Amino acid sequence: MTPDAFRAAGHRMVDEIADYMHALETMPVRPDAPPGTVLGALPDEPPETPESWDDIHRDLRDLIIPNLTHWQHPGFFAYFSCNASGPSILGEIASAGLNINGMLWSTSPAATELETRVLDWCRRAFELPEAFEGNGVIQGTASEATLIALLAARARDETPDRPIHLVTSTQAHSSVMKAAMIAGLARTPEDTSRVHFIEPNPNGSMNLDDLRVRAAALLDGAPNPPPIMVSATAGTTGTGGIDDAAEIRAVLDDLHRAHNGAPWPGWLHLDAAWAGAAAVCEEHRAALAGASVADSVCINPHKWLLTNFDCDLFWVRDRDALVRALSITPEYLRNPASDAGAVIDYRDWQIPLGRRFRALKLWFVIRHYGLEGLRAHIRRHTAWADWIEGRIAEHPALERVCPRSLSLVCFKAARGGDDATRALLDAINASGEVFLSHTAAPADGAFAIRFVPGATTTEFRHVVRAWEIIERATNALDA
Amino acid sequence: MTPDAFRAAGHRMVDEIADYMHALETMPVRPDAPPGTVLGALPDEPPETPESWDDIHRDLRDLIIPNLTHWQHPGFFAYFSCNASGPSILGEIASAGLNINGMLWSTSPAATELETRVLDWCRRAFELPEAFEGNGVIQGTASEATLIALLAARARDETPDRPIHLVTSTQAHSSVMKAAMIAGLARTPEDTSRVHFIEPNPNGSMNLDDLRVRAAALLDGAPNPPPIMVSATAGTTGTGGIDDAAEIRAVLDDLHRAHNGAPWPGWLHLDAAWAGAAAVCEEHRAALAGASVADSVCINPHKWLLTNFDCDLFWVRDRDALVRALSITPEYLRNPASDAGAVIDYRDWQIPLGRRFRALKLWFVIRHYGLEGLRAHIRRHTAWADWIEGRIAEHPALERVCPRSLSLVCFKAARGGDDATRALLDAINASGEVFLSHTAAPADGAFAIRFVPGATTTEFRHVVRAWEIIERATNALDA
Repeated sequence: MTPDAFRAAGHRMVDEIADYMHALETMPVRPDAPPGTVLGALPDEPPETPESWDDIHRDLRDLIIPNLTHWQHPGFFAYFSCNASGPSILGEIASAGLNINGMLWSTSPAATELETRVLDWCRRAFELPEAFEGNGVIQGTASEATLIALLAARARDETPDRPIHLVTSTQAHSSVMKAAMIAGLARTPEDTSRVHFIEPNPNGSMNLDDLRVRAAALLDGAPNPPPIMVSATAGTTGTGGIDDAAEIRAVLDDLHRAHNGAPWPGWLHLDAAWAGAAAVCEEHRAALAGASVADSVCINPHKWLLTNFDCDLFWVRDRDALVRALSITPEYLRNPASDAGAVIDYRDWQIPLGRRFRALKLWFVIRHYGLEGLRAHIRRHTAWADWIEGRIAEHPALERVCPRSLSLVCFKAARGGDDATRALLDAINASGEVFLSHTAAPADGAFAIRFVPGATTTEFRHVVRAWEIIERATNALDA
Repeated sequence: MTPDAFRAAGHRMVDEIADYMHALETMPVRPDAPPGTVLGALPDEPPETPESWDDIHRDLRDLIIPNLTHWQHPGFFAYFSCNASGPSILGEIASAGLNINGMLWSTSPAATELETRVLDWCRRAFELPEAFEGNGVIQGTASEATLIALLAARARDETPDRPIHLVTSTQAHSSVMKAAMIAGLARTPEDTSRVHFIEPNPNGSMNLDDLRVRAAALLDGAPNPPPIMVSATAGTTGTGGIDDAAEIRAVLDDLHRAHNGAPWPGWLHLDAAWAGAAAVCEEHRAALAGASVADSVCINPHKWLLTNFDCDLFWVRDRDALVRALSITPEYLRNPASDAGAVIDYRDWQIPLGRRFRALKLWFVIRHYGLEGLRAHIRRHTAWADWIEGRIAEHPALERVCPRSLSLVCFKAARGGDDATRALLDAINASGEVFLSHTAAPADGAFAIRFVPGATTTEFRHVVRAWEIIERATNALDA
């Protein structure tokens, strides 16, 4: 495809996407075709000869798009959002067009240096500690950030006779246990010999009393206590609970001091994938307070900061431990700049070797919106969640399972138990206009409905409409 | 940004990229600014208020692009290519515009089913064994594929008292040791207690005599021999050596039979990241012959099959082992389709939870070019490498370090040792018109220059020009 053919085809594809953006609101949020529908409609054999773009566009429009769950739909209130935005899509276009591999500084200096600068911008925007300056990197997801934090902690703290243990909350993201399994700390999700799950408070945050008891047992058992990494969460996936990282560190410091007179030397990772984004607003900065005592922290602009998937920001205090855990240099990657130690080679800060130019989209987003625009984006969503929370609190047939956390509201049927709440969720989603997901309440495991605005396309009128649908379904079931 | 504002801005960004494609040939392949140039030119503070797209485009054009290494440049003959193509960039545009998260089938059925179908297309195109049908998935990179293969092998074969060992060649990609470090098999790159590096043949393939000796030592030492994963390579990064996977399995079978009467039960992973792509041509299918005895195999269309980074194809025979290694299901991800076991949830086949819609670009590429177009692409490059190899063989001051492997030719100065070859490479790259990289010759570690065409933009005239530059530099140094 020549550059000029690409120009024409590119305009057409941009139009396709702009048309999709326009049409989104008129589509159901989720498809309803059974498994195998798309698979069965696609030919078994790949084409031997070229097909036309008319055919490709037709299949995209008639087969693929109608069978997607539309994460950019204004009625998408499920999970945490996976928000796109115009500027971010433009960043993906530029990144794809340049298609460099930023594995080493030398394999694309501007890619590395732009990433370093944009991460420093974000550090300032979130008021993260100065110790993180220059020590930021884009990961694909928070899953990878947690794994990498664990690897860095192991490289720094573990010795052959003292394997590292991982402490987290039952409300932490599934990727914490996945990281432990990948790194070899656990053989199965049920293997808790070196992974310790702390009970939650009713709002989903880590219960410090349980932490004290469990950590004391870990330290008391051995004359030479094992190194521990704690993975704390700012914004649990279920209910948005925010662990008190400073208190977590204080608990471990106290126990360690009682044991050997010294404070806890372990690694504290703060998974702020969702809630961290809110800290761009001064009034929500408490969501990231834990960063002041954290060895590493991650925030996902691809969840709630207008940046396309994938984009996880990861900062570390001790980059030496990180690089020690991940650096291997074969001859074919050696180069003068790296040998001189004068540059950052981000391949040593991540699982893969190769890397896309993801800093571009974040740079575009920050420049297009400015920090003021990012703050307005967060404030819209928290205000709408506040409004919905008010409606739920007033409705006699509904109750909140815990107080709203930022833009996340969790609620259930006031009567009829899990069956009633499950039926309510099904009725709400059956509308096709909105999509809400569920969780288990931290306090008692009750089935709970989650409502969390986050899509870039959502306006207040969509939230009002969502409440109409929730209210109607509630009244119908409660009748 | 409204859909219509995006439409206009999208057209402009597409134009920017089309202009870049046009201008590429006139730029030096690599920048020459010192470290810190871009970092220093970017403001310390993020903007509080929105900036204009005129400014963003200006900085992209004047600051970022001139400081990139241009992997799409027609004179890029270094490493392995990271090839983009028009259809693939269109796929990235569509993927970014839809921005779905395909973690579960239910979170975007079409994304999962298109991926399954396109991987099956590729299985047929490469003539991979039928056992891989329906068992393919897109990973980011071959690094992740190797790690995941190791995790699946561990989940299948390891027991608490018999930790898994990893056997590979000294010529294997650095990601093999990186995977071992991530998974906890090795503490440092020098820790070879459970990672065993086999010596190479002069062409870079694994030496089977050394394998026999080393594997025998592993099996003989213990009454209960440890499970072993072998990571074989089809196309080593240095010189393109292709391990004989069938013979590797035969060696291990023989040793195991002698030990306990049964064939080797271990996991054989085939890293065919680069060379595997050539198997789309019948005459190069031998590059993937090892797949017939492999438990898993990976191929990178983002290297040599016209598909943008990142896109690694990974197939596994035993998907249960894979899923067992990586599956964790919290309440908030449960859904009827998954609970019924009726669908594939690709989150259980990869490190992260979330995932981009990468199948689109591969689908576009295969449909736009057809298999015939993909084969022509491979054949152009192997023919050009053959032509360069002929020129090198005829030149008295140059010699090949091993026979050409597909599109990769490795050569050195015939006289003057490593210093002469290093000076030659510097002189070639100083032209700015081409970029070649280096490796260490498997036989004796000699500094060797690698020449490997792979960029989509490269035409035969660029290869001819590259030879002129190589010849001129050689004659100047040899004078």
